[in-house]
Amino acid sequence: MSRLVNPHGGGELKPLLLEGAARDAELARAQTLKQVKMSSRETGDLIMLGIGGFTPLDGFMMHSDWQGVCDAYKLANGLFWPIPVTLSTDDESVKEGDNIALVSDSGEIMGTMKVSDKYTIDKAHECMMVYKTTDLEHPGVKMVMEQGKYNLAGPVKVLSDGGFKAKYGDQFMTPAETRKKFEEMGWSKVAAFQTRNPMHRSHEYLAKIAIETMDGVLVHSLLGALKPGDIPAAVRSEAIATLIDNYFAPNTVIQAGYPLDMRYAGPREALLHALFRQNYGCSHLIVGRDHAGVGDYYGPFDAQKIFEEIPKGSLETVNMNIDWTFWCNKCGGMASQRTCAHTKDDRILLSGTKVRAMLSEGQDLPVEFSRPEVAAVLKKYYQGLSAEQNVKIELKGHSAA
Amino acid sequence: MSRLVNPHGGGELKPLLLEGAARDAELARAQTLKQVKMSSRETGDLIMLGIGGFTPLDGFMMHSDWQGVCDAYKLANGLFWPIPVTLSTDDESVKEGDNIALVSDSGEIMGTMKVSDKYTIDKAHECMMVYKTTDLEHPGVKMVMEQGKYNLAGPVKVLSDGGFKAKYGDQFMTPAETRKKFEEMGWSKVAAFQTRNPMHRSHEYLAKIAIETMDGVLVHSLLGALKPGDIPAAVRSEAIATLIDNYFAPNTVIQAGYPLDMRYAGPREALLHALFRQNYGCSHLIVGRDHAGVGDYYGPFDAQKIFEEIPKGSLETVNMNIDWTFWCNKCGGMASQRTCAHTKDDRILLSGTKVRAMLSEGQDLPVEFSRPEVAAVLKKYYQGLSAEQNVKIELKGHSAA
Repeated sequence: MSRLVNPHGGGELKPLLLEGAARDAELARAQTLKQVKMSSRETGDLIMLGIGGFTPLDGFMMHSDWQGVCDAYKLANGLFWPIPVTLSTDDESVKEGDNIALVSDSGEIMGTMKVSDKYTIDKAHECMMVYKTTDLEHPGVKMVMEQGKYNLAGPVKVLSDGGFKAKYGDQFMTPAETRKKFEEMGWSKVAAFQTRNPMHRSHEYLAKIAIETMDGVLVHSLLGALKPGDIPAAVRSEAIATLIDNYFAPNTVIQAGYPLDMRYAGPREALLHALFRQNYGCSHLIVGRDHAGVGDYYGPFDAQKIFEEIPKGSLETVNMNIDWTFWCNKCGGMASQRTCAHTKDDRILLSGTKVRAMLSEGQDLPVEFSRPEVAAVLKKYYQGLSAEQNVKIELKGHSAA
Repeated sequence: MSRLVNPHGGGELKPLLLEGAARDAELARAQTLKQVKMSSRETGDLIMLGIGGFTPLDGFMMHSDWQGVCDAYKLANGLFWPIPVTLSTDDESVKEGDNIALVSDSGEIMGTMKVSDKYTIDKAHECMMVYKTTDLEHPGVKMVMEQGKYNLAGPVKVLSDGGFKAKYGDQFMTPAETRKKFEEMGWSKVAAFQTRNPMHRSHEYLAKIAIETMDGVLVHSLLGALKPGDIPAAVRSEAIATLIDNYFAPNTVIQAGYPLDMRYAGPREALLHALFRQNYGCSHLIVGRDHAGVGDYYGPFDAQKIFEEIPKGSLETVNMNIDWTFWCNKCGGMASQRTCAHTKDDRILLSGTKVRAMLSEGQDLPVEFSRPEVAAVLKKYYQGLSAEQNVKIELKGHSAA
């Protein structure tokens, strides 16, 4: 009998999204409360709390949780957690004990919170511990350094999925929904393939290595905010669907998305990716080169190594490491540095810059790099961009995550 | 800290081969004892006992072990064991309590045994339970049905490795030697690739899937007797070495051999293959299509399914199942039925008969089927065979094990 991994912490999923009459009542109450505006990252985190992806958290983190997570990868109660999930404000008037309404950038009331802790943090400390840098060029660091002066903590009630379901339909699956789907498919060994980019042959190869030995793969795309220049979710989704339809056997892969923004925290974010994939029911997280990285802040395989450094049993979901992958002419197929006996000259490794240039000039990508059907989807998108937009595109060529 | 799987039973390796003065003394004693001739299969089993591959057995099986293994996959002491390891004779004069010398086909004294049990068996019962048939066309069944009237059981002392070390040098590694090697390499997750044939691209693909996610692969060839028409060990070994040198990254694969004869017991033999690979220090056994099968006696994936049917914890070494593998023109690479979305017409699946015909006619095998360097080794061998020998070759095309 197949059995999925347990939600993080070992209990039941803990979705904090209210529905029906309970939601209506809480929304009415929320309209009477002081409003605190959330950043895009905070909004994504709240939606994740809502759908149970951050089980077993019941809201934004207290100071003791923040400190434990930064310094020792654990909540105040001792449970493993790799990255702070916090809410900030500059509003001096909010006090502990207040009930507040949590409002998105666009002004939507997304939830409510009973403020049980208001505290200041050493932002530079968080950045050094979590991002290993305080460089403001790092987009995750920039988010932390620009956040409000105070962190507000407390249990939340979530009132909205942020419109993701309406926008992405069946592709926006909650942890309960992916678990149900896996059970229907009879899957228990499921690898999550984290992505924020379209899938080229390298990424197809990673997913297929997992499929060869497991029940299936969840291609799990980030639907929240990216860096400028990343491919929009709708285009990426179409490109991935095209790949799945043409190159994957039936019933081996499911495409879905989740609502978070990228933090680009590299190794620490890889751990968070594994943690919430456990909530989604995945037994494995595929960790390739430079997982969740940006620039040169992390070594290309730091996100693999960190899984060896955390205490055993921190997570049920484990990493499935794959080395740098590519087409090799001498191998006559896809390979990685672990399986290819040949040299750089034999390998087809396109750079992101070159991909962008080729696509925006209407050239075809080499078949060793991209499936023609996938390249056609991307070409169409790039050709629709203005020249100015094109300059801004900085496609990360080989890092999927 | 890497750690290898434990020897079967959880204790230390139990090699029964004497060395030095102890061997000399026992050999002198053996020369005074009544001789019992062993079959080729029995000789292979004795050498395996000698090198510790059948840990924790201390000799050929008693009646109670035989019965338990046939009927319930376990020794009299309750330990999991899938296939009888027995010695037979027609010699009426051997009695319980006798000390006997065990002699190979060629007359070499290979070991001694204190006979603690002499018993008759229902050979047809063994065949039905272990081979699922009593058809004498089945080479494993034929061996059982033609063996002596009595089984002799008891603890053995082993005096010879049968000349395997002299013949195969470093490639004939004992379980203690492979374990030492794995530890030197820093390996703990090691997949055994069982083979009795040269490796074509399908087999390379199986091994590389394991290498992508584990520390390394032991390509572990059977050096004992095969069916007529199987490729001789020396040719196979050269073909495999050629493949490794040209197509595997350094320090990812070790080629070694073991002394058993094939039983062709399909699923049950796959379990035995996993059991003794545990003794060799391998954490996984790659199980492809028709593992250890012959003819149509077993379903193509019965050897995978049986691992789900045995009690959990029977073995530390687990199966790594791979579906039928091939080159696919539409995939533009190697794939399996789990990862290829296309049809038979897109796939290059050569039959054994066609391979033999092409090689013996001096034709080149398609590059999608065999690496040219490997095909050249095989072509040279086939061209050296007489026309009559060529007719007898029945290469099994896609089953490695």
